[in-house]
Amino acid sequence: MTSKGYQAWLQNGFEPDHAAMGPIHDFLQQIITTAQAGSGIYQTAVQELVDGIRSITGQKPVCMESGSGRYLTLGTIGSSSFIDQSIEAGEAERLGDEGFVIRKVDRGEHVYIVLAGKTEKGLLYAVFHFLRLLKTGGLTDQVDVTEVPKYRLRMVNHWDNMDGSVERGYAGQSIFYRNDVLLSRSARVRDYARLLASVGINGIAINNVNVHRHETRLITEVYLPDVARIADIFRNYGIRLYLSVNFAAPIELGDLRTADPLDADVQKWWKEKAADVYCYVPDFGGFLVKADSENRPGPFTYGRDHADGANMLAEALKPYGGIVLWRCFVYNCHQDWRDRTTDRARAAYDHFKPLDGRFLDNVVLQIKNGPMDFQVREPVSPLIGAMEKTNQIVEFQITQEYTGQQKDVCYLIPQWKEVLDFDTRIKGEGSTVKEIAAGLVHPYVHSGITAVSNIGDDLNWTGHHLAQANLYGYGRLIWNPELSSELIAKEWALLTFGPNKAAADTIADILMASWPIYEKYTSPLGVGWMVRPHYHYGPDIDGYEYSKWGTYHFADCHGIGVDRTQSTGTGYSAQYEKANSELYENLETCPDELLLFFHHVPYTHRLKSGKTVIQHIYDTHFEGVEQVEQVISRWRGLEGDIDAERYRHVCGRLEAQLENAKEWRDVINTYFYRKSAIPDEKNRVIY
Amino acid sequence: MTSKGYQAWLQNGFEPDHAAMGPIHDFLQQIITTAQAGSGIYQTAVQELVDGIRSITGQKPVCMESGSGRYLTLGTIGSSSFIDQSIEAGEAERLGDEGFVIRKVDRGEHVYIVLAGKTEKGLLYAVFHFLRLLKTGGLTDQVDVTEVPKYRLRMVNHWDNMDGSVERGYAGQSIFYRNDVLLSRSARVRDYARLLASVGINGIAINNVNVHRHETRLITEVYLPDVARIADIFRNYGIRLYLSVNFAAPIELGDLRTADPLDADVQKWWKEKAADVYCYVPDFGGFLVKADSENRPGPFTYGRDHADGANMLAEALKPYGGIVLWRCFVYNCHQDWRDRTTDRARAAYDHFKPLDGRFLDNVVLQIKNGPMDFQVREPVSPLIGAMEKTNQIVEFQITQEYTGQQKDVCYLIPQWKEVLDFDTRIKGEGSTVKEIAAGLVHPYVHSGITAVSNIGDDLNWTGHHLAQANLYGYGRLIWNPELSSELIAKEWALLTFGPNKAAADTIADILMASWPIYEKYTSPLGVGWMVRPHYHYGPDIDGYEYSKWGTYHFADCHGIGVDRTQSTGTGYSAQYEKANSELYENLETCPDELLLFFHHVPYTHRLKSGKTVIQHIYDTHFEGVEQVEQVISRWRGLEGDIDAERYRHVCGRLEAQLENAKEWRDVINTYFYRKSAIPDEKNRVIY
Repeated sequence: MTSKGYQAWLQNGFEPDHAAMGPIHDFLQQIITTAQAGSGIYQTAVQELVDGIRSITGQKPVCMESGSGRYLTLGTIGSSSFIDQSIEAGEAERLGDEGFVIRKVDRGEHVYIVLAGKTEKGLLYAVFHFLRLLKTGGLTDQVDVTEVPKYRLRMVNHWDNMDGSVERGYAGQSIFYRNDVLLSRSARVRDYARLLASVGINGIAINNVNVHRHETRLITEVYLPDVARIADIFRNYGIRLYLSVNFAAPIELGDLRTADPLDADVQKWWKEKAADVYCYVPDFGGFLVKADSENRPGPFTYGRDHADGANMLAEALKPYGGIVLWRCFVYNCHQDWRDRTTDRARAAYDHFKPLDGRFLDNVVLQIKNGPMDFQVREPVSPLIGAMEKTNQIVEFQITQEYTGQQKDVCYLIPQWKEVLDFDTRIKGEGSTVKEIAAGLVHPYVHSGITAVSNIGDDLNWTGHHLAQANLYGYGRLIWNPELSSELIAKEWALLTFGPNKAAADTIADILMASWPIYEKYTSPLGVGWMVRPHYHYGPDIDGYEYSKWGTYHFADCHGIGVDRTQSTGTGYSAQYEKANSELYENLETCPDELLLFFHHVPYTHRLKSGKTVIQHIYDTHFEGVEQVEQVISRWRGLEGDIDAERYRHVCGRLEAQLENAKEWRDVINTYFYRKSAIPDEKNRVIY
Repeated sequence: MTSKGYQAWLQNGFEPDHAAMGPIHDFLQQIITTAQAGSGIYQTAVQELVDGIRSITGQKPVCMESGSGRYLTLGTIGSSSFIDQSIEAGEAERLGDEGFVIRKVDRGEHVYIVLAGKTEKGLLYAVFHFLRLLKTGGLTDQVDVTEVPKYRLRMVNHWDNMDGSVERGYAGQSIFYRNDVLLSRSARVRDYARLLASVGINGIAINNVNVHRHETRLITEVYLPDVARIADIFRNYGIRLYLSVNFAAPIELGDLRTADPLDADVQKWWKEKAADVYCYVPDFGGFLVKADSENRPGPFTYGRDHADGANMLAEALKPYGGIVLWRCFVYNCHQDWRDRTTDRARAAYDHFKPLDGRFLDNVVLQIKNGPMDFQVREPVSPLIGAMEKTNQIVEFQITQEYTGQQKDVCYLIPQWKEVLDFDTRIKGEGSTVKEIAAGLVHPYVHSGITAVSNIGDDLNWTGHHLAQANLYGYGRLIWNPELSSELIAKEWALLTFGPNKAAADTIADILMASWPIYEKYTSPLGVGWMVRPHYHYGPDIDGYEYSKWGTYHFADCHGIGVDRTQSTGTGYSAQYEKANSELYENLETCPDELLLFFHHVPYTHRLKSGKTVIQHIYDTHFEGVEQVEQVISRWRGLEGDIDAERYRHVCGRLEAQLENAKEWRDVINTYFYRKSAIPDEKNRVIY
C-alpha cells in the first residue's frame, strides 16, 4: 500500500524546494521531547514529526530529552520551561483544547522552533501543520503561527454498512466492515485516522445513518469489543468515535415491544446500552440518529415528537458527556406528485422550528446545507440559525452523490464556502452560516460541521484521485473557513503531487473550474433532480417528475420551475429572514442560479445575464462540454510533471467525464427543445 | 399444498353437474387397461384417469385387464382388439405421435368408451382431455372425439436462475433451484409437469437463456445427475427437457481458450458435452441459445455468424436427435438514441434473413412474436415465415413482463391469437403465422411454438390467481389454435373455480376485457416502452427515450411516434410482404392500434375513430381506469359463488390494479398535456 494514490496528501519521499527550505533545515536534525501524561496522542505526534521530517529531508531526526543549538521541541504548555517561555500570558487560554502555536524562539545558545498546544491534541495538529508548511514552502526562519479551529465539532459521517457496501459510496467497499465483521485490526483504519487528523477532523460516525439489522447490534456486546478497538485507533489521532443507532433497537434486538421514548422501560434500556458502550469506549462521542425519515423508525410511531425522541437518548448519554446528533432530513417521502401544495423544501423547518427550546443541551440538530438533498445547487437551508435555543451542526456531503460520483471532477469547497458565507440575517447582518455553526450567533453548547465521507477501499481512497481534494479541503475549510478555495486547492495539489508549483497551479485551476462546469452541463438554474432515480447519476429529466419523492420541475411546453414564493407558490421563501425572503420572492432580485428553485417561469424569461432561460439552458450545456474538453487539454499538459500512474488514471476519468457531459448536454437540450420548440439561437445540433 | 390455488385447473373434489353427466356416469366404474411397453407414461395416464374420476365422482374406479358391460378402456393402437376395433383404417397414421381418439363403441355385451392413441403420449393427452370434457359438461354418451395437436414443438421456457431467482418472474422464486442446487426431488416439479401435460405441453427448457456462471455447469457432471432426475419427472408426463447453454462455455468452464465455432477443439468439446448430456438424459431435447444478444457471448466474437454458431451445436446434437433452438432476439443494445437511422425493430430480420439456407435441419430459429420485445401491442415479426429453408419456432411470453406483472389482470390469449391469425402473405393469402409455425407454409423439419412461463413457487403458482389462465390457455391454444379465446377462458374458469356456469361466464368476461383495458391505461396506439426502465412496470414515458436500448417514441410538443416507413423513415415496413407493407406504410390504412409504431404524427392527427391522437390518449386513459372499476364491481358480484380465499385474494390484486391504473392515467395524460398544451375536450382533471 505504498502507491502515491494511497499516500494522498501525506506523501512519503516528498522533495520540497530545498533552497526555499534552507534556513529551516538546520532545525530539523534534533527534536527535543518533553514529559507528557502519555495519552497516546503525544507519541503519535512525535512519530508523525519524525516520519514527516525523514520523508522530506531523507534523514531521521534525533529525539532527545534535552539539547542545544538549533532544534525543534514539542510539548503541551506546562510540560517544560522551553515551551512555557515561548508562550505569552493568556495565550494558553486562547488556544483552547485544540489550538497550537508554532514559533521560533531565540535564546542564544538555544534557538528552537516550538510546537506547543494546551493539549496533546493541539500538539498533534501543530505537527501536521508544521509539516504542511514545510512542504508547501510556507515556513520562514521567523515562523510565528497561532491556529485555533473555528468549529468545535469537526466530523465525518460514514454511510458504511456491515456487509461492506457503502451507501452513496463511489470508491469501492467499506474500510470498516466486510461480511458483517468489523475490520478492527486493519492498517487502513489507522492510515485513514492519520489522513483525518492531518486536516483536523475530530469526530467520526462509522456506520450508515440507515441502520440495518446487523448495524443495530453495534451497541451490543456482540460488536462492542471490535468497536472499542476501532475507537482506540482513532483516539490516538484525537478523533472521537460516534455510532449511528436504530431508534427501534429496543424492539429489533428483541428486548422490548415498544420503542416509545416516554416509556420507562425504553428509557432504562437506552441507559443500559449507553453504559455498555462507555464501558468499552470511555470517550465515546455519542449517537447519530436518522429517525422518522425515509421510512426509518422514530418517535412518530408513538405519537411523540423529535424532541421526545432525541431527549430520551440524550438523557442516556448525558452522564458520560455524550451527545445526540439528530438529523433534520425529515420530509414526506410518500408525497403525491399531483399535490402541488406540499413542498419538501419546507419540511425540515416546518418540523423542527416549532420545537425550539424543547431539546436538551446535549442534543445537536444535524441540518443538511440545503433544504432538499445535496443538489449541485440549492439555497441554504432556512433552518440553519433559525433555532436560538437548540444546538445545530451543519451537514455537507463530501461523497459526490449528485455531484458526479467521483467519475466527474467536482471540487466542492467553493460550494461549501458559499453556504458558510451565506448571511441568514437571523440576528441582523453578519449572521452567516459560518458564525452560526461556530456557536457565535446563538450561544450553542455544541455546534460545528459534519459531512459524509467520500472514501472507500479503492487503493487511492476516493476512486478519482482528484476527489481526494474534497476530503482534504473539507478538513482545512472547517478548521479555518477564511481560507480561500484556491489556497486550499493549491496546498492540496502541492502536497499530493509534489512541489512543482506550475503543475499545482494547473491542478488547482482544474479543481476551481470543476463545480461550475458540472453545474453547467447538468442542472440549470437551481432546478435540480433531473437525474436517474436512485442512482442519482446521468440525465433523466422526468426521472423524479412523477415520483413520490417531492422532487419536481414542472416543465411543460411553456416553462419550468417550482413556484416557492409566498404570493403564489408553496410559501417556502417565507422561511427566510425578511431580506433574504424578499430577495428570493421577487423575480427581479432572485439570483439566476436559483431562479427555477423559487419560480416557475416561461422559457422566454430573461435572466439577469440578458439571455432567455431556454437559451441559457442550451448555452450552458454546450459550454459545459467545451470546458471539459479544455480541462482535458490542460490536464494533458501535465504529462511528465506528475507521476505517470496518476496522470493516466485521471486522463481516463476525464475522458469518461467528457462522454458523460455530452450525454447530459444532448439529453437536456433535446428534452427542452422537444418540449419548447424554441430553436437554439446559434443553431447547434440538438436531436 | 392442497390449496385451491395450488390445484389450479386440476382441482380435486370437483363437483360437476351430475345431471348433465348422467349418461356417462355408468362408464366410470370400470377401467380396462391394456398391456403396454411400459414407458412410464401409460402408468401416468391410468393413474391420472383413476384419480380424475375419483375426484369427480367420489368413487375410485376399478382397474381390470378385462371386463364387460359399460366401461372405459385406454391403450395404444395395437395393444388390444377392443382398441383396434374402435379405430378406422388409416386413422392411426392421421393421429401421429401425439393425437388421440375418445370414442364410444357399442358391441352389445361390451359398450365402452375407448381412449386411444398411436402412442402412450397420445393416450395421456386423451385422459386429460376426457377429464376436461367430463368436468366442463362437454361429454355426451355418443362421444366421438379425434384430436391431433397443430404444432409439433409445444414448449415452455423458464428464465430461472440457479440462485433461485426468476428473471421477469412475478410469482416468487424458482421451483427448480435454490442456492445453486437443483430441487430434483421436489413434489412441485411433478405437479408442474402434470399441469403442463394436461394442456399438452411437450417440451421445457428449465434455465434462463441468460446463462450465468453456475448455470453454465448444468451440462457438466456436477449437475447432470440432478438434471437427469428432473428429466425423469417430465418424461413420465411426455415432456422433453431442454437446457439453455452458454456459447462461451468451453472458455468459462476453463477447458479452452476459444469458443470459435469453426475451431476443431471447440467442435469436439461440444460433441463430448452432448454425449455426456445424452448419457444422463437419453431423450434430451436440445440446447436453447441466446447468443450475440444483449451482451451474451456468441459467434460474432470470432468473426463467425449465427449459422456457424448454431450449426456447430447442431452437429453435436444430431447423432442423438437433439435440436438447437437459436434465438433471434438480436439487436444493437448499445444504440445511440441520437441516431434515428438504426431501428431495433429491423434487427432480427436484417440479421437472419440473409442466412436462409445456411442452417442445418436440426436448427430451429426461435422468433419472438413481435420485432421489439413482448410489448402490450406490436406488429407481428416480419421474420416469421420469411425464411423458407430454415426451421422456425414462434416465441410468446406468458409471464407478464410488460403486461402487468401479474399485479394487473391481462389475459393474453387474444393477443396471441391475433399473432397466429396474422396473414404474412409470404406465399399468398393464407400464409398465416398459425400455418407457418405448423410447418404448413414452408416444409419445416421442426417447428412449433414456445413461450416464457409465468410460474414460480408462490402457492398459487402465478402470483395472481387469474394469471393461471394464461398458462392454461397457452397450452390449449397451441394444441388447437382454432379454439376461441372466450371458450378457453370459460373452460379454464369452470375447471379452476368449479361448475358454476354464471360465475365462469363472469370470470371469462373479466379475462376477455383485460388486455384491452391494460392497453388503454398504459401504452397508446402501439407506441410501447413508456415504462420504468429495467422493471418494465409503471409509467415512465421518457424512461427509455434517451437510452441505449433502441426504444423511443420521439414525442415533442407537436407529435409522437416512430417513422418506420420506407418513404421517410427507417424502412422497417418494407420487411413485410407487399400487401402488409403497403398497409403499414400508408397513413390512411395503417391500423390505429399500430399507428405510432409505424408513423410519427401530430397530436391533432385524426384516427379512424374520428378522434385526434391526443384526445384518444386522454379518452383511453380515463376509460381504462373506469373499466378497472367495472371489473372490480363484476368481481365483487362473485362473492359467495367462488371460494372466499381466492375471491379475497383477487379483490386485493384488483384494488392494487386500480391504483396502478390511476397512476398510469395521470402520469400519461399529464405528460402529454404538458407537452402538447392541448386541453382535454371533456375537461377532466389532468395535472
